[in-house]
Amino acid sequence: MKDTVPAITTGALPGSRKVYVAGDSHRIRVPMREIAVTGEAPLTVYDASGPYTDPGAGIDIAAGLPEVRGGWLQAQGHVEAYAGRSVREADNGFASGARLVPAFPGARSVLRGSDGRAVTQLAYARAGIITPEMEFVAIRENEGRLAAAPRDGEAFGAEIPDLVTPEFVRREIAEGRAIIPANINHRELEPMIIGRNFKVKINANIGNSAVTSSMEEEVEKMVWAIRWGADTVMDLSTGRNIHNIRDWIIRNAPVPIGTVPLYQALEKVGGVAEDLSWDIFRDTLIEQAEQGVDYFTIHAGLRLHMIPMTAKRVTGIVSRGGSIMAKWCLHHHRESFLYEHFEEICEICRTYDVSFSLGDGLRPGSIADANDEAQFAELRTLGELTQIAWAKDCQVMIEGPGHVPMHKIKANMDEQLKHCHEAPFYTLGPLTTDIAPGYDHITSAIGAAMIGWFGTAMLCYVTPKEHLGLPDRDDVKTGVVTYRLAAHAADLAKGHPGAQRRDDALSRARFEFRWEDQFNLGLDPDTARAMHDETMPAEAHKVAHFCSMCGPKFCSMRISHDIRAEAERQQGLEDMAGKFREAGQLYLPEDTA
Amino acid sequence: MKDTVPAITTGALPGSRKVYVAGDSHRIRVPMREIAVTGEAPLTVYDASGPYTDPGAGIDIAAGLPEVRGGWLQAQGHVEAYAGRSVREADNGFASGARLVPAFPGARSVLRGSDGRAVTQLAYARAGIITPEMEFVAIRENEGRLAAAPRDGEAFGAEIPDLVTPEFVRREIAEGRAIIPANINHRELEPMIIGRNFKVKINANIGNSAVTSSMEEEVEKMVWAIRWGADTVMDLSTGRNIHNIRDWIIRNAPVPIGTVPLYQALEKVGGVAEDLSWDIFRDTLIEQAEQGVDYFTIHAGLRLHMIPMTAKRVTGIVSRGGSIMAKWCLHHHRESFLYEHFEEICEICRTYDVSFSLGDGLRPGSIADANDEAQFAELRTLGELTQIAWAKDCQVMIEGPGHVPMHKIKANMDEQLKHCHEAPFYTLGPLTTDIAPGYDHITSAIGAAMIGWFGTAMLCYVTPKEHLGLPDRDDVKTGVVTYRLAAHAADLAKGHPGAQRRDDALSRARFEFRWEDQFNLGLDPDTARAMHDETMPAEAHKVAHFCSMCGPKFCSMRISHDIRAEAERQQGLEDMAGKFREAGQLYLPEDTA
Repeated sequence: MKDTVPAITTGALPGSRKVYVAGDSHRIRVPMREIAVTGEAPLTVYDASGPYTDPGAGIDIAAGLPEVRGGWLQAQGHVEAYAGRSVREADNGFASGARLVPAFPGARSVLRGSDGRAVTQLAYARAGIITPEMEFVAIRENEGRLAAAPRDGEAFGAEIPDLVTPEFVRREIAEGRAIIPANINHRELEPMIIGRNFKVKINANIGNSAVTSSMEEEVEKMVWAIRWGADTVMDLSTGRNIHNIRDWIIRNAPVPIGTVPLYQALEKVGGVAEDLSWDIFRDTLIEQAEQGVDYFTIHAGLRLHMIPMTAKRVTGIVSRGGSIMAKWCLHHHRESFLYEHFEEICEICRTYDVSFSLGDGLRPGSIADANDEAQFAELRTLGELTQIAWAKDCQVMIEGPGHVPMHKIKANMDEQLKHCHEAPFYTLGPLTTDIAPGYDHITSAIGAAMIGWFGTAMLCYVTPKEHLGLPDRDDVKTGVVTYRLAAHAADLAKGHPGAQRRDDALSRARFEFRWEDQFNLGLDPDTARAMHDETMPAEAHKVAHFCSMCGPKFCSMRISHDIRAEAERQQGLEDMAGKFREAGQLYLPEDTA
Repeated sequence: MKDTVPAITTGALPGSRKVYVAGDSHRIRVPMREIAVTGEAPLTVYDASGPYTDPGAGIDIAAGLPEVRGGWLQAQGHVEAYAGRSVREADNGFASGARLVPAFPGARSVLRGSDGRAVTQLAYARAGIITPEMEFVAIRENEGRLAAAPRDGEAFGAEIPDLVTPEFVRREIAEGRAIIPANINHRELEPMIIGRNFKVKINANIGNSAVTSSMEEEVEKMVWAIRWGADTVMDLSTGRNIHNIRDWIIRNAPVPIGTVPLYQALEKVGGVAEDLSWDIFRDTLIEQAEQGVDYFTIHAGLRLHMIPMTAKRVTGIVSRGGSIMAKWCLHHHRESFLYEHFEEICEICRTYDVSFSLGDGLRPGSIADANDEAQFAELRTLGELTQIAWAKDCQVMIEGPGHVPMHKIKANMDEQLKHCHEAPFYTLGPLTTDIAPGYDHITSAIGAAMIGWFGTAMLCYVTPKEHLGLPDRDDVKTGVVTYRLAAHAADLAKGHPGAQRRDDALSRARFEFRWEDQFNLGLDPDTARAMHDETMPAEAHKVAHFCSMCGPKFCSMRISHDIRAEAERQQGLEDMAGKFREAGQLYLPEDTA
């Protein structure tokens, strides 16, 4: 592994400062990033990076982030504190001595809805209550805009408002079209929303590797991913220390943390899928819910009768959770315990507000398997489960794609909308071809941008190492930035109001040779600056009216400025344009007219 | 610059060997690449890399490649050899002494159509003649297939045959829907075809930098680009030695070479756009046509009256050629000399069979400028010029896009088809957002895959350095592989017969843990292998039934094999599937039914 063990990365992004916008109804401070622009007002952009990019915030991972939601929750008065489940040796894979990652320091009380009460954002939304979380995300989605921006785009049925109001957020959640993954035990969270009528979000996966990781290393992976724009992070750790590492991550995470509880349950039974049981799984759900996991991937849609549908597949079952459950079902020749106990899972989730991410255990792992009977049979079951979860006031999103060629992407979105009642879609990629191992962040960015445009609410990133190995620090950054640009391309195409402000600001900087602005307005200022400096390193070149691509004589933008100056001298391009339009005929030079 | 000066890269790609397929009607040998696959027949794929990947070919860049077309042309009997234009000092920017790149060794005769006769593939196609070039590309497009393959996809009106025949090629060329860029003076060429009903092609740009380049370095840039899959190469050199370097490139190029003659013309007038004239331009066209340039980008569609349409653009005119011509037009307040002399340009092109790439001088350089009045006004003019060129038997393709958000991409293809009479479209990207400098190979791969699907015949690559600096060797490779995967994604989505064979072969290898096959069947075996080896370097791991991503316990593919074995033991998954379908109802396990 090239991966080193860095300290926690802190500090503002280049040219940027953290600003906070206060709420109207609740005592909330919504973080945003303000990018300074020469000769223009600063540009305010969405900022998922948390206090780590605020030089004024003291970062101490042994203390965790401040519990910004602490005060909000108590106000609701529907929760009770209790001691919580005791940590067992199996929770950390029986790691001991020097191999045991220390527990997160200090005791903290665990909350749950009192008397099994639903304390979910969905329950509040249905009751007509605008929670602090709802106001928080409403402000956040507007990115500092106070007025409507020019609209453009094709939204495929999405209904994106000019400005997001708290009431709009409430209604979208009440209708099940959006979720705010926000476990009441994750009080360090800066809430965010996932839904088709909001900005497209991205998820980054992290997870400890086979070698023992320090907790600092795992926290840094999360911090690094959100620095570059991950909106949520899934902790897909397996192996030892899984419980303690998760605690360190959540206590330091300003973004929602998702998990696949089945992975830890499998560790508890020594990796033998057949030995899994509902009791072990249930206990793991409570363990993780108490820690504050914000969303669970639950592969309850993969049923016994669907397994034969995968017999002729080129790549069988490629979801880890899906393959584990299929193995269990087939061995016992029984229906999945996740499916049979789904209502009980809902009972747990509603008490902590853990959102469902209904897993696509049968997603296609190759172009040949895309959109097949198995995949769509499971999708329809996920739609049934959505309604069961909604009846219990649980928040739900639906997982999808995998490997899907371009012409089969839209059908995925259409089928999902049809069968899953507009619950948010959360897709891996999709990868649009199988033939480029090493470049699957790109094969999948193509599919991700398209499905995001069609209506997918959150895109799960893919790194260059997909199919080949564990991503290192550079791969994570590449994956996150790639998915950020794909999500933004989708926002632009959907006509998300305000999305184009950043493109316009960057393009103005580009046209006016404001190199520093161009770097800072981009998604990755460091890489842009480094690439520019490779061929034109001198500081003087940062104001040069050309770059090494074309050089001064062949710089089209420089010549464009000459053209405008020449036109001004002659009579003004706009006058010329006006004259041309008035005449209603081709403008011909005098000497040939 | 990280760029070093490598020798010419030769040798087969991993696991591959060069094979040649003989023609039926002509004495041609069509190169293909055969990838060995364990336990399966080898997979034959399209191969643009030329003799450099054939260990049996002796490479000596001072001798140039063998003139494979030499015999074919004489057979036509419509050409005459002549001495050709003398090289002038201005052709090499007055480089002298140690700064002068030596001329390509040896004298060679120059050919042209006798008595100004059209010797274009279009002229022959219209006359009902199937040239050797036509048979060559017909065989090439089938990639060794002798039978139809299963079809899938949405072709948006493209009519792709099951197998390409020479007569099909002839008809497509006769109709103007495809071109074979093949200057009669580029006899080293392995012909290829560009058209909507053929495989999507990609172009890589190279060009000498400001510092003096050796001819070996420039030839290597071309060889490196085609090694990774570039179908054509544009030499966008500026500065000194432009003539001699071009000679070295063409004499060693098995792919079509394109240029923008305006660049050299501008060098001849010291970089002062206003000093350009038709005479200097005309002389440059003949100079380059005699050398064997296969296609010329000619910005004849940018007319004087369109310049004011760019007045309110965010990024003005971003095409180098476009900005130069606009400056000339405005300064002289005259119609473009390219437009006024277009018929004379056709007279030159028809005599050597230089194809037109009608330049999009007004392509948008930012999301804000996409699909604007200026862009589409020029496109309509390109359509008019197409008909003039066709009347002279000249082959034509049309240049397009730039920066275009996803929802505006299809309109570009539709407008092009409508106004340019189905002449092949050749687009840069398009880049689907402006906000990711350093990642524009990806912002543009999204747009390129989509517009390729919609019908664009050739995609001009974009490297990570776009907008920032000159691409180095790594950037060129990244750009080429990225565009290869985008073109392939487009072929899959169009339902190109046989395209999915490679995805399927790779996915079978993946499912069966044939790691070496997986690497070798990918677009970049070296990178895939290196990434795998970062975390699992041991040779034994090349047969491991898992990778470092998930480890053995969590490997879904490994578990899928267990599932299939278990099912076989029970009764066979397919039997189960059959039973399920027969019963016509949900398959329920016995103990819950």
